[in-house]
Amino acid sequence: MNKERIQQVRDIMLKNGVPQIIVSDSLAIFYLTGKKIESGERLMALYITNEGNLKLVINELFPQDKVEGLEFVWYNDVQDGVEVLSKLINDEKIIGIDKVWPSGFLLRLQELLPNKKYVNSSLLIDEVRKIKDEDEKQAMRESSLINDEVIKELIPWVTKGLSEIGLSDKVKEIYAKHGIKEYSFEPITAYAKGAADPHHEPDESFGKHGDCVILDIGGMYKNYASDMTRTVFIGEVSDRQREIYEIVKKAQALGIEAAKPGNRMCDVDAACRDYIESKGFGKYFTHRTGHSIGLEAHEYGDVSSANEAVIEVGQCFSIEPGIYLQEEGIGVRIEDLVLITEDGCEVLNKVTKDLIVVED
Amino acid sequence: MNKERIQQVRDIMLKNGVPQIIVSDSLAIFYLTGKKIESGERLMALYITNEGNLKLVINELFPQDKVEGLEFVWYNDVQDGVEVLSKLINDEKIIGIDKVWPSGFLLRLQELLPNKKYVNSSLLIDEVRKIKDEDEKQAMRESSLINDEVIKELIPWVTKGLSEIGLSDKVKEIYAKHGIKEYSFEPITAYAKGAADPHHEPDESFGKHGDCVILDIGGMYKNYASDMTRTVFIGEVSDRQREIYEIVKKAQALGIEAAKPGNRMCDVDAACRDYIESKGFGKYFTHRTGHSIGLEAHEYGDVSSANEAVIEVGQCFSIEPGIYLQEEGIGVRIEDLVLITEDGCEVLNKVTKDLIVVED
Repeated sequence: MNKERIQQVRDIMLKNGVPQIIVSDSLAIFYLTGKKIESGERLMALYITNEGNLKLVINELFPQDKVEGLEFVWYNDVQDGVEVLSKLINDEKIIGIDKVWPSGFLLRLQELLPNKKYVNSSLLIDEVRKIKDEDEKQAMRESSLINDEVIKELIPWVTKGLSEIGLSDKVKEIYAKHGIKEYSFEPITAYAKGAADPHHEPDESFGKHGDCVILDIGGMYKNYASDMTRTVFIGEVSDRQREIYEIVKKAQALGIEAAKPGNRMCDVDAACRDYIESKGFGKYFTHRTGHSIGLEAHEYGDVSSANEAVIEVGQCFSIEPGIYLQEEGIGVRIEDLVLITEDGCEVLNKVTKDLIVVED
Repeated sequence: MNKERIQQVRDIMLKNGVPQIIVSDSLAIFYLTGKKIESGERLMALYITNEGNLKLVINELFPQDKVEGLEFVWYNDVQDGVEVLSKLINDEKIIGIDKVWPSGFLLRLQELLPNKKYVNSSLLIDEVRKIKDEDEKQAMRESSLINDEVIKELIPWVTKGLSEIGLSDKVKEIYAKHGIKEYSFEPITAYAKGAADPHHEPDESFGKHGDCVILDIGGMYKNYASDMTRTVFIGEVSDRQREIYEIVKKAQALGIEAAKPGNRMCDVDAACRDYIESKGFGKYFTHRTGHSIGLEAHEYGDVSSANEAVIEVGQCFSIEPGIYLQEEGIGVRIEDLVLITEDGCEVLNKVTKDLIVVED
């Protein structure tokens, strides 16, 4: 149980006038209770009110040790779990629902408690998760340090004749060496034409002399995700490639400079985007600048022109501008994670962003 | 587009008095339209009415080729996809919702169309998916034949000194050789004590002379899942192990015999369970007898005492009784997939169920 986090959720519930919520997302439940339970398609719901104990409705198939301040409410496969849950709920009040809760459960609950005012309350938890506490900051740092090591070991492999899929398998092999078997996302390893398409998935194509190579990788360490991108070159780099690389590198540095308390998330996006636009490549930077990260690779709060939220101390997000010239087969993206501090940010990735040419 | 499957869904909608449904499950959408689209957290919804075109509401990030009979309704990241969807819906009528649809979308739809009667309509699709057509039967056969090959190559490895995790990695290596990179589920490879726990996940323990070994594996081939279990023995088999093995083997054969049109799903369960009970091991057969399978490893319709549905031609499910003696470190499970025919069933797995002792 993490009493501080639960108190923060209760504070935000009070502020928003939501007296009771159902949390079903297993990562949110882990975040609040320390219990990592995968109940699959079976109902699992943490019922939180402004006061008193938390109640976790859970199938008997997943026995748990006792936890102080957490009451387990058991049901079995011949019972209707939603009915068991419905009996805990105060029918007179608004009830918040996790946005990821499968509709099958919600429809059943609405059948049992038809007069209730149901609202989407995921944001209440997301707002708390957005600010990393000291334990989380430490985990994020360690996770990114391992990611640094992995990408350093990976870079020499871009000239070893592996296909994109082969290179992606190599990423997993290196993670395994570092004890990591789960990834933040499937590794992206892309040569030239593939690198020039930001939505490309690794295929059986091979790299050749003069290609740029995008390496976008992340692993799960102590439950926390890492995520970084480096773009390197095989054998040599053309003037055009170098021009693009330096623009992205400078844009990313400007993004990092803008990542500080008081600025808005959209200011970070603008810092990268305005510079790339000023160099004439605005239309080739086709995605948002970044995303929040923590227990999941993509958490609430993106770094985009649409997000006007003011940046707060303790936030963690990626800064990853890119330029993609499909017709020229050139793609460059550079990505680090940053942790917002009192007066700026701590960059969690330490691997050089100087242009790297790997000898072939 | 699969017009026959869509017509079947429309027939069943009519029969159940549900004039319009929203299908959001990507496998169900693939099943009906042939379009395999992973839209992640972004709304994707197939809107089906009793007549006229199908409409697929989808984000512009996922461009698609034209499909006859399917109308794409596009939205982008600055639009509210649910609002776009809500404009298609007839507000006067009942609307069916997929049980897996995230509640965030449903709550927003209910906000936009508050007077609507919402019902869970997943069963309407599930009932159609339950009966495999000829293409699907062929895919299920091929998928299981490959699974047979994989388990045959795997069995000799149980005496090669691999840990359970090492053996599980070996399963994946063998699948890769057969071109399979996705699994129906994470392979279960369990020695002795691990085998004696039906919920065990592979760990770093090793097998030794005299151990039983449970191998429960499945791969995805041409979008269809396989799933089979064999239990083998390292070096020698004790009388006790042989006794248990033969009981499970006979129980499974009785289950297969009961798997025919007209019988109920629970009859298959009873055929296995009654025999195991008659031998005095009833309380050690702690799970249901099987589950339906197809595009997913676990589909609607299980083989359990609770499922009184009458078996129909074209159903495909597993028959997998087991006996687990935790204190003795003995666990035996035998599993095949069956496809229901006019007068019985076709067993999709051909690997012998005779007791196998692997020389160590």
